[in-house]
Amino acid sequence: MEVIHSISDLRARIRSYRRKNDQAVGFVPTMGFLHEGHASLLRKAREQCGLVVLSIFVNPLQFGPNEDFERYPRNAERDLYVAEAAGADIVFMPDIKEMYPGQIRTAVSVTGLTDRLCGASRPGHFDGVATVVSKLFHIVQPDQAFFGLKDAQQVAVIQQVVNDLNMPVEIVPCPTLREPDGLAMSSRNVYLSEEERRQALVLSQALQKAEDYVQANANFTAAQLNQLVSRHIASAPLATIDYVEVLEYPTLQPFESSYLSDLSSIIIALAVKFGNTRLIDNLILPVGK
Amino acid sequence: MEVIHSISDLRARIRSYRRKNDQAVGFVPTMGFLHEGHASLLRKAREQCGLVVLSIFVNPLQFGPNEDFERYPRNAERDLYVAEAAGADIVFMPDIKEMYPGQIRTAVSVTGLTDRLCGASRPGHFDGVATVVSKLFHIVQPDQAFFGLKDAQQVAVIQQVVNDLNMPVEIVPCPTLREPDGLAMSSRNVYLSEEERRQALVLSQALQKAEDYVQANANFTAAQLNQLVSRHIASAPLATIDYVEVLEYPTLQPFESSYLSDLSSIIIALAVKFGNTRLIDNLILPVGK
Repeated sequence: MEVIHSISDLRARIRSYRRKNDQAVGFVPTMGFLHEGHASLLRKAREQCGLVVLSIFVNPLQFGPNEDFERYPRNAERDLYVAEAAGADIVFMPDIKEMYPGQIRTAVSVTGLTDRLCGASRPGHFDGVATVVSKLFHIVQPDQAFFGLKDAQQVAVIQQVVNDLNMPVEIVPCPTLREPDGLAMSSRNVYLSEEERRQALVLSQALQKAEDYVQANANFTAAQLNQLVSRHIASAPLATIDYVEVLEYPTLQPFESSYLSDLSSIIIALAVKFGNTRLIDNLILPVGK
Repeated sequence: MEVIHSISDLRARIRSYRRKNDQAVGFVPTMGFLHEGHASLLRKAREQCGLVVLSIFVNPLQFGPNEDFERYPRNAERDLYVAEAAGADIVFMPDIKEMYPGQIRTAVSVTGLTDRLCGASRPGHFDGVATVVSKLFHIVQPDQAFFGLKDAQQVAVIQQVVNDLNMPVEIVPCPTLREPDGLAMSSRNVYLSEEERRQALVLSQALQKAEDYVQANANFTAAQLNQLVSRHIASAPLATIDYVEVLEYPTLQPFESSYLSDLSSIIIALAVKFGNTRLIDNLILPVGK
């Protein structure tokens, strides 16, 4: 496995691969502090592609002024170990100057899909995501890019950018990985105190309750599911709900129960703070006929 | 020369070319109604590239609600004749549904460079330009793209997008072509009445006066040049000035005369209406030491 820090070295390496090979180039963009969820993306890329490129870059553009950019967890040494074990061929680790050598004046932004959920809670976040992912796609020029569905809104936003801008890359959404007790894997889980970690289980439990409810009730409304999930989360004293929303997926628009049979999928999405740590989770359910 | 209407056909054609050739793919994006200026871009591309792709697409996204999208001049038959004579290999002529199959929710936008000149007069114009050029770059994936410097702000904006988003394409700015009497070539010149056409000569004359003035005076200010140009244009009774601006190039920022020797170039840019027809022209002058 090679570790590459400069854009020009990475481009030369990928160009040279493409000259000799017809196989696909797979790309897994991350902010590092890799966990089993990231490893599952790399393994999927390894199965499908001839060359697997992982990027590790904590992108300042997608953090708000009062968010956790400075304290976002980093561990390059362990990341390289995880990356190699999961089958990465190249790890691209640019520093901030390499990615933003001067003031960036260009933004890629998506309307509609970003009005709700994390887009509403974190103004500018998805512009930062769409912009850095566009940069990385132009640098790596992958055939396929792999994203985890824990960040379902991110996947929807990136798919929209790719469609709208005709980017020549296939987005491959991959399922959320969970700890044995159900907590969705996240680099931010490391922030949790022991008690917060214990109480954070309400998130996956609440989503499970919603799934059971949908399976038991042919007719349900977004409001019913929302109430069910919110109440269960509120049973954890350390939980502060940022949002719980039940929307059509992947349009991320509200729906009326009477149109449910016209939908293909719904998403139950939540963001909840435990102390200073904001966790997200979601469940995407096929519905309708 | 091939005429291609669909994105997938164009991609297949270019992929097949790349598989067999190591030469560069050159791209000239236009809105059609080709004149000698466009032809000069195609000839430049022909000199430098193995495959020359011209696109003709009148992009609704870059026209304001009261602008001339509907009446923008079109003549596909003549365009194909000009394109072939100038050396195009492929003409890509998508219809609007092909470029915008659904509601587009993604925008590529540039701040700073778009605050002045046409960016100020035509709100949203450069977002529309940056977005459609990004789409076309992703569709064609050219090595080089050729743009005329009559639209100097457009060239600066696109270069900024390419730099900021790490797009793997080289922007090649090409000089403005002029009619024998000095009028900058433009698809919109066809709108001019005989009298407007005659009076429109003040534009290139005013820029010539400014150039003479700069060459005769070691010290000059932006205000002096602005006044000189504005006064000459005002001598044409049918001319209504939209803007005359003297800025640093390519940053498009105002400058103070005392810093002139620190600048590499200045631009004297103007937009002037004759009746309903808005014409632009500019002069880029190397200055400083």
